[in-house]
Amino acid sequence: MTPAPPPAEGGPPARRRPGGRTSRIRTQVLDAVRAELGERGYDALTMEAVAARAGVHRATVYRRWRDVGGLLADVFEAASDDDWQPQDTGSLLGDLAALNHESQESLAAQPPIVAALFAASFRSEEAARGVRRLWEDRYTRCEVIVSRAVRRGELPPDTDARRLLIAATAPVYHQLVLLRTPPDPDLPGQAARTAVLAAAAGAFAKSPPDGDA
Amino acid sequence: MTPAPPPAEGGPPARRRPGGRTSRIRTQVLDAVRAELGERGYDALTMEAVAARAGVHRATVYRRWRDVGGLLADVFEAASDDDWQPQDTGSLLGDLAALNHESQESLAAQPPIVAALFAASFRSEEAARGVRRLWEDRYTRCEVIVSRAVRRGELPPDTDARRLLIAATAPVYHQLVLLRTPPDPDLPGQAARTAVLAAAAGAFAKSPPDGDA
Repeated sequence: MTPAPPPAEGGPPARRRPGGRTSRIRTQVLDAVRAELGERGYDALTMEAVAARAGVHRATVYRRWRDVGGLLADVFEAASDDDWQPQDTGSLLGDLAALNHESQESLAAQPPIVAALFAASFRSEEAARGVRRLWEDRYTRCEVIVSRAVRRGELPPDTDARRLLIAATAPVYHQLVLLRTPPDPDLPGQAARTAVLAAAAGAFAKSPPDGDA
Repeated sequence: MTPAPPPAEGGPPARRRPGGRTSRIRTQVLDAVRAELGERGYDALTMEAVAARAGVHRATVYRRWRDVGGLLADVFEAASDDDWQPQDTGSLLGDLAALNHESQESLAAQPPIVAALFAASFRSEEAARGVRRLWEDRYTRCEVIVSRAVRRGELPPDTDARRLLIAATAPVYHQLVLLRTPPDPDLPGQAARTAVLAAAAGAFAKSPPDGDA
């Protein structure tokens, strides 16, 4: 789960969908935004560079996206427009570890598109709203991990899915995005295991056994 | 624990220390950087605005800090130059909850200086190195929370202090900095309690009972 899955390397963009000229232009332009961000960073991102890279008339880009904030907002919007689902590995620990591995890979990918999108979200109110909606979408899709675990009897029914998911995933983002430590192959599994142990001890019960914190 | 404690509101800067003219100028300039960042954000940060606000000659600011990256690096450097210690509340849960409350308050403070420093750290390599060193310093100082808990018999001696501290604190930063959710009064205590429950279940043992993640 990442705020923006990286496009397939080299090959055609993973989310190109059937559609007319309008949808093709959108795909070209948003691919160009991601490529510019990854290679040159937010500071070098201009409407002109995106139009040139996409091979689309500048006037079209201005008319449809208005400014760099509009382009970024649409990149986040498009990122929700996929059929991503968390892996179903058959266990809560496996599902959370797989999710964290996927996040760590996206965050460590080169060029650093996801990192550049985080940086952009600190600059533009429009991008910040986009990233907020995208996280909400991703965490909502991940709730199935918890409901599957409840069905299997791994978790009690009154588990707060969102709190469990945040506890399981936050350390990966914290270390890679904020602390800027290099990817640690043990981190995805350790963070998943910590959340599973805490869940077994009742940490995410909606009515906690004691409210002393 | 935050990458940069906010200056005391209204009153004199908390970290003004005895010293000569050089140290006084540094204090004035770094206070001006923080104030500019908090009020106008990174994009409006210029050497000129900082010099004017600090009441210091532009030439002095250029000579000593060279550019905006140099100013930011010194803000992070100065933030380590305090005597901050985590609170000693007498229990692991209390210590971690107090730490998280402090972080949440700094992250939610107005003007948003800490948030602006995060944003800056995505823009400047020098600022990124500064923030990395500062986190390292803060987490090292927090290790006493774990060693006190070990002494009290609350934790086994082979507890991985850093992993426990990151598990306890990451959700607060994740929600406020990355997910941009408003401060939640329950979050600091819940994140602390989750880490304590996971610790009791052996999640942070340096040689985990099972390595299946």
